[in-house]
Amino acid sequence: MSVAKDFATRLDERIAALDNPSLLGLDPRLDYLPKHLQAKAEAKNGSAPEKSAAAILDFNCEILEALKDIVPAVKFQSAYYEAYGASGKECLRNSLKFARQLGYLSIVDAKRNDIASTAEAYCRAILGQSEVIGGESYTPLGADALTLNGYLGSDGIEPFLKYCREAGKGCFILVRTSNPSAGELQDLILEDGRRVYEAMGDLVARWGTAVPGKTFSSVGAVVGATWPRQAIALRQRMPQQIFLIPGYGAQGGGADDAVAGFNQYGRGGIVNASRSLMLAWQKEGGSGLDFAAASRREAIRMRDDLRRALAHR
Amino acid sequence: MSVAKDFATRLDERIAALDNPSLLGLDPRLDYLPKHLQAKAEAKNGSAPEKSAAAILDFNCEILEALKDIVPAVKFQSAYYEAYGASGKECLRNSLKFARQLGYLSIVDAKRNDIASTAEAYCRAILGQSEVIGGESYTPLGADALTLNGYLGSDGIEPFLKYCREAGKGCFILVRTSNPSAGELQDLILEDGRRVYEAMGDLVARWGTAVPGKTFSSVGAVVGATWPRQAIALRQRMPQQIFLIPGYGAQGGGADDAVAGFNQYGRGGIVNASRSLMLAWQKEGGSGLDFAAASRREAIRMRDDLRRALAHR
Repeated sequence: MSVAKDFATRLDERIAALDNPSLLGLDPRLDYLPKHLQAKAEAKNGSAPEKSAAAILDFNCEILEALKDIVPAVKFQSAYYEAYGASGKECLRNSLKFARQLGYLSIVDAKRNDIASTAEAYCRAILGQSEVIGGESYTPLGADALTLNGYLGSDGIEPFLKYCREAGKGCFILVRTSNPSAGELQDLILEDGRRVYEAMGDLVARWGTAVPGKTFSSVGAVVGATWPRQAIALRQRMPQQIFLIPGYGAQGGGADDAVAGFNQYGRGGIVNASRSLMLAWQKEGGSGLDFAAASRREAIRMRDDLRRALAHR
Repeated sequence: MSVAKDFATRLDERIAALDNPSLLGLDPRLDYLPKHLQAKAEAKNGSAPEKSAAAILDFNCEILEALKDIVPAVKFQSAYYEAYGASGKECLRNSLKFARQLGYLSIVDAKRNDIASTAEAYCRAILGQSEVIGGESYTPLGADALTLNGYLGSDGIEPFLKYCREAGKGCFILVRTSNPSAGELQDLILEDGRRVYEAMGDLVARWGTAVPGKTFSSVGAVVGATWPRQAIALRQRMPQQIFLIPGYGAQGGGADDAVAGFNQYGRGGIVNASRSLMLAWQKEGGSGLDFAAASRREAIRMRDDLRRALAHR
């Protein structure tokens, strides 16, 4: 397979082109959708899960269309699609296809962790193609990148690294998460003085080095935005990692915290917002007929907030 | 929801009834299937992924049928089904349905890890039902249990525990895995002298206590069989956990190692074998026309091997 550019370079360039390190999180639930989308889906033929997935696909596509010149990348949380079985899987596949056509870089937030041939199956499932009967190949999702959990060590990461290298894809490995209880395991202190999450960060830095001549590795790190001091320290440990930073907006983190882990040139991070972008229409009030326009207004506000934070730090 | 019995009791009783702590792992790939199943699927109508999923469903169902009076439970590795997209999801759903009808307890090996509403979505996706348009509910998979990764701490586990408690379901949390590099993170020594995996074991023991009057918790632990001394020590830390023990057969562990973590009454463990059971027909030689009978012969051999190891330790 010949690939023009590695994932990290593609993502870095697209962030630079839009001057916006935002990541649109599409983690849809039926109760997030305005009534008119549900009614439209209900009038269609098909099973109840098919109708539900159709409503979610409409929701995703309208938001993707409205934000395409503002936001460089989109992250789909796998759980919300898995909850609708085969229909949900097809919805995710079509959402990814539409996002690609509009120029977004795409990440599936799956937090997978497995070894050997199982890890390879996940690569095919989320990033690549599967061989199918008749000698054809089938693309189940075809995302640009996925999230991983490194608890299993190198065996649970290297099959993904190999696949990403060969196919120009990327991954983001959990280092320090943003949830309140993250520290129960991640903050434990090792006998050498490091915290568990710092040991994980050191592993990630070892797993992911940039292509010669490039700034960033296609092996990134998930680093929670609610812990800015940790983010600054982790940047020292992982100079070549792009940080995927959750926790902006509805989860509570502000722009100044979110950009704390960016490098000295204001690069190397992408800040996720899910509910604040998906549910902007609820915050604005009204029936949600113009939900995608509300998401666009919020995406512009978030972009400008991040630009300001990067300019003033 | 009213549930007659908790998951741990159901599993423990079924293991006792068949006097066999084996777990059938169904992690199918097309190249594991005998040629006649592929040819049968090729002759069907449908897309290439649909045909591939149909061949895998046939393979699963024949093995499940052949082992139903020997093996108490089945574990499906999610990755292999995800690799065929929506068709793979439907194949997993139908395999689970068939396994339930035959009396197997079912585990989806998904190693999920996420928080809050995302964790709840995974519960619906793998164990329960989703609400769909029209007010109906839909069962995407409906498994009895799933595997989890506890790196996120309590926030990443408690939504699953709540769901399991209310619905009579179970989970198995990764503590010490059996892969060669598992120790890179899991064996690091903490300043209090514990290893990281022991700290995880202590968390799991805290998360999962048995229902009053019962021996085992429905919150189990994944404990690699290639490390028997660790398994014995972990049994002390986790007296109420059922251990899911990978690594028997093709992955290298023997029966004596596999049962090391069982309690003093020879209970509290279930030993997985995937390739050695699925691919028994290849080991025996021949065309694979009687692949399910070969799996049965191997399942009986494994059962007797585990019985012997439990009797002689």
